[in-house]
Amino acid sequence: MVNAIEWKDGKVIMLDQSRLPVEVIFIECTDYNIVAEGIKKLWIRGAPAIGIAAAMGIALGAQDITAKNFKEFIAGLDQIFNTLLSTRPTAVNIKWAVERVKKLLKANKDESVSRLKELLIEEAQKIHKEDIEVNKAIGKWGAQFIKDGDTVLTHCNAGSLATGGYGTATAPIFVAIEQGKKIQVIADETRPVLQGARLTAWELMEAGVPVTLITDNSAGALMKKGRINLAIVGTDRTVKNGDVANKIGTYSVSVLCKEHKIPFYVAAPLSSIDFSIPTGDKIPIEERNAEEVTHIFGTCRIAPENVKVINMAFDVTPAKNITAIITEKGAFKPKDIRKLIKKDVNLDEYRIKIGE
Amino acid sequence: MVNAIEWKDGKVIMLDQSRLPVEVIFIECTDYNIVAEGIKKLWIRGAPAIGIAAAMGIALGAQDITAKNFKEFIAGLDQIFNTLLSTRPTAVNIKWAVERVKKLLKANKDESVSRLKELLIEEAQKIHKEDIEVNKAIGKWGAQFIKDGDTVLTHCNAGSLATGGYGTATAPIFVAIEQGKKIQVIADETRPVLQGARLTAWELMEAGVPVTLITDNSAGALMKKGRINLAIVGTDRTVKNGDVANKIGTYSVSVLCKEHKIPFYVAAPLSSIDFSIPTGDKIPIEERNAEEVTHIFGTCRIAPENVKVINMAFDVTPAKNITAIITEKGAFKPKDIRKLIKKDVNLDEYRIKIGE
Repeated sequence: MVNAIEWKDGKVIMLDQSRLPVEVIFIECTDYNIVAEGIKKLWIRGAPAIGIAAAMGIALGAQDITAKNFKEFIAGLDQIFNTLLSTRPTAVNIKWAVERVKKLLKANKDESVSRLKELLIEEAQKIHKEDIEVNKAIGKWGAQFIKDGDTVLTHCNAGSLATGGYGTATAPIFVAIEQGKKIQVIADETRPVLQGARLTAWELMEAGVPVTLITDNSAGALMKKGRINLAIVGTDRTVKNGDVANKIGTYSVSVLCKEHKIPFYVAAPLSSIDFSIPTGDKIPIEERNAEEVTHIFGTCRIAPENVKVINMAFDVTPAKNITAIITEKGAFKPKDIRKLIKKDVNLDEYRIKIGE
Repeated sequence: MVNAIEWKDGKVIMLDQSRLPVEVIFIECTDYNIVAEGIKKLWIRGAPAIGIAAAMGIALGAQDITAKNFKEFIAGLDQIFNTLLSTRPTAVNIKWAVERVKKLLKANKDESVSRLKELLIEEAQKIHKEDIEVNKAIGKWGAQFIKDGDTVLTHCNAGSLATGGYGTATAPIFVAIEQGKKIQVIADETRPVLQGARLTAWELMEAGVPVTLITDNSAGALMKKGRINLAIVGTDRTVKNGDVANKIGTYSVSVLCKEHKIPFYVAAPLSSIDFSIPTGDKIPIEERNAEEVTHIFGTCRIAPENVKVINMAFDVTPAKNITAIITEKGAFKPKDIRKLIKKDVNLDEYRIKIGE
């Protein structure tokens, strides 16, 4: 499995995903500013991976701070926090990482500066490890839905490249393979930004998973021919009633699955579920610039000049089209994910379990 | 409306569609070999347009034949026939044009060579005119389904560029506009070869029709938002039971239309209906090379080297997903198109008519 990011020998090693799949270049970050640049320039993307990168950037920057005491050390960190927070203002995981680090420091304010520096490295590694564990748990709960011999369709990239490892939508695939199941993956190329072609196909090939690339508009015909057994996608934001926002095209995949009676699963770490939003129609959908559609990689023009374009980055799949939402706490019917925030609930009553 | 091909001042003027939309170049063909090159190199494509090009190529080549009598003239034409027939061996319309010309010559074998040369020009122009009339008739029968204010989704290019003019799927759009209806078109970009982005969006903009380009995987989300009122597509081959083969992705559009209760129409000139094939599952589906998917315009690589690809050029939409098939003889329920070959049938009993 490819590592999108790694703490190694006091440095942050980051795969430059913006060049994939044409070039495979790992950047050795010896300075937190390089980590910040990587977040800004999309060398690294995917909410969990960005959170890990931010924590590692903080740990890296902290090592170079000359401080005699806690107060000076905190003052030195401020610049690092601000630099990282300004890279992608809407990426909640950077903020989350900064808050987590601040809390840790507060709880350890009596430690020496050198110990604090160590603690920041440990915390970054812990955040990385925790993310992998969350994904492995998603993988475990999800793998039960994949039978030996199945072909799994996925859309966009919710793979190890978007996380600390294992991915979310790909975790059940990796775990199923670890369980000895022989499976195939079909990756939608995912226009306009082609994350499926550039990232998912690449990382699955690197991991030795049999993967076949298709254009987004081939999925329906393949389902009709019985060549797809289930679909698993990731999510950018899932809301309280089980509606799921994800990359544009996800909704169409869900409708096609429904038509062909193919199960449609969403892999959603708890961190991606926003229980404060009641229904999917309340999720703001970002419309992005026309050039993503009219030009490939910003250079290769495929459409007339000045053509009008609708470029919705995401769509919302209603809960009724979703067979199960797979979290690290179990797989649930979409209507049951609200149980995850209820107190005194025996989740086992709501978990979907196959073959027990 | 753009002319893909035209007979003008003794020459064939052909738009080089292979360079669209980046360059708009009309080729002045003064030699039938240039016409043949144009067919071969996809300067011109679309079954009706290729038939017209072949007839015009024959007429053009015929003018340069030095022959004293009918026999010498026919001998001279043979080379032209063979050159044109070898350009795209599976294009039935070239064969059709050659047969039609041969029949005409046979019926006029007592005419002078100079008169025969004139007749060939007249025949080419007649073929061109007949095609436009077929399309206008499709337009007339189809326009009744488009209401003032509607937004029409189309897939691939079955526009004037693929025909002598008006197109097939676009004819109802052009006629509706001639009737004074204010309408919008949404064009699927149509991966992998992007005929929607490169050709449909371009020709509709040229014709002053309001058109918006989307990625193929946006259609479902737009339907869910109520932004598409109907879909009209063309067809490569329609069979006796009303099943329709068309560009990959057409089937998915039909399923999405069904889910959203949006009418789904197919514009099918009689020449594209193959009554010898009973059902859609008997239509051979061409699988094309992986490079169409992995490289844009053969140069811009978007996927890992050696990735496995499924690239089905077409899919089959079952009759049950189709609201009506629009031919030059009327619009019919898919199950009723077989009436078109029955003798002593009053087609009016089967024609779908709205608002009469």
